[in-house]
Amino acid sequence: MDCLLVSFGLPVDKKMIDAAPNLKYIGVLATAFGKIDIEYAKKKKIIICNLPGYSTESVAEFTIAAILEHIRDLEEGKRRGRSGNYSFDGISAIEIKNKIFGVIGLGSIGKRVAEITQGFGADVRYWSKNRKKDAEKRGIKYESLDSLIQKADFLSINLAQNKDTEGIFNKSRFKNVKSGVVIINTAPMELVDIDGLIDRLKNDDITFILDHSDEMTEEDLKKVSKYKNCIIYPPIGYITEEARAAKQEIFLGNMEGFLKGKPQNVVN
Amino acid sequence: MDCLLVSFGLPVDKKMIDAAPNLKYIGVLATAFGKIDIEYAKKKKIIICNLPGYSTESVAEFTIAAILEHIRDLEEGKRRGRSGNYSFDGISAIEIKNKIFGVIGLGSIGKRVAEITQGFGADVRYWSKNRKKDAEKRGIKYESLDSLIQKADFLSINLAQNKDTEGIFNKSRFKNVKSGVVIINTAPMELVDIDGLIDRLKNDDITFILDHSDEMTEEDLKKVSKYKNCIIYPPIGYITEEARAAKQEIFLGNMEGFLKGKPQNVVN
Repeated sequence: MDCLLVSFGLPVDKKMIDAAPNLKYIGVLATAFGKIDIEYAKKKKIIICNLPGYSTESVAEFTIAAILEHIRDLEEGKRRGRSGNYSFDGISAIEIKNKIFGVIGLGSIGKRVAEITQGFGADVRYWSKNRKKDAEKRGIKYESLDSLIQKADFLSINLAQNKDTEGIFNKSRFKNVKSGVVIINTAPMELVDIDGLIDRLKNDDITFILDHSDEMTEEDLKKVSKYKNCIIYPPIGYITEEARAAKQEIFLGNMEGFLKGKPQNVVN
Repeated sequence: MDCLLVSFGLPVDKKMIDAAPNLKYIGVLATAFGKIDIEYAKKKKIIICNLPGYSTESVAEFTIAAILEHIRDLEEGKRRGRSGNYSFDGISAIEIKNKIFGVIGLGSIGKRVAEITQGFGADVRYWSKNRKKDAEKRGIKYESLDSLIQKADFLSINLAQNKDTEGIFNKSRFKNVKSGVVIINTAPMELVDIDGLIDRLKNDDITFILDHSDEMTEEDLKKVSKYKNCIIYPPIGYITEEARAAKQEIFLGNMEGFLKGKPQNVVN
């Protein structure tokens, strides 16, 4: 019996699965498993387990952190403070309160982003494939994707990657975002049409923030990083101490469950 | 009839008041008025009006922003991203969720800091001169000042400056804060015993964040800025576009009210 342990974002296709005839278990060291051929694995009775939710809070807090860092010009503020310059001239600052904060994809991370920004007093709206009545009861309003994109002052992309969502942030949608919008994508960059993003970055009237983790080609990465209104972080969204501890615990729990014949967090 | 318009933090003492015999109105271009001799002004029937609340949200959001910037190592993350280094090795990150978040002074800013951090899922506790039953009903727990200082993972100082609060964060209190605590002071630095702060900064096990606006002497400023665990921003806490607009509106409204014989926001 063979086990395959796959870290974040690595593809596992038919060929790889067929190369391991005794494969019975794929343990994914991440929440996302969009690049694994789960149907084919299922057909071959291979159990795939992921790590749901371990980084929910880590990513949600990073989303807010990166937005605030930008809208409060903190990097420039720190730089000045360190050099003994305590002038605020030319430092721009806006608030989250009373702004339209759009969450695209109201899964576990999106839901936390929505809840936290409600605490800031934002007008929080969402689009998701399925309506979430619970969230709506708590004042998180539903909008169609195109309407939300046109109205939002802030947009947080929190969709899972699949055939329906790849490239969902396309050229025309980038054209339609509000001037001044701050967009943050902590989800895979496959959701984004890179040329559409670049067309809009050229306009110099939006900010796009992402935490990059190998999903863009070197070429695309080079293209977007030319624009200073595209803020690229290393993949630090999901790396809090708390998330790492939860990750280990769930990963080992999954293995143990599988070995005892009671697999948990099975995704196929 | 003379009017005196005073910007943030400038002292107005008996001598200055006596130098303007026809003074009838002091308009403070700030919320804080701790350095004005309000009793003496009252005796001379001079009306003092301040700008309450215009920067509440601005300061509260900055408080959260500066804490998150620090605990997510965003400056280093941005620096790496910009230089094409997408490794997260050595970047530390912790969460606000489930931590003890202490708010010292539950006035309007402190209350908003408490509410926002509740949205993050922190265990929010406060100390204030007077108990705030409304906040307690919403789960913000009261603690004595010394107990809160010993337990908190995060501390936000939001007290007004007066005789009772000057130097309240004294040597022994700095000794008692938890190792690893992140303290942010958006209130006047007169609340802080500088030597006590420095003694603890030397230990290199706490972080102290402030936004400096002329209230420290050059000498004190030089002393604290030696420590890299003391993060000093220019005074950018209260400068959002929204706060500036509200400031103008309230300031002009105060003048108009005074001239029409119906002064508003009178503090003495």
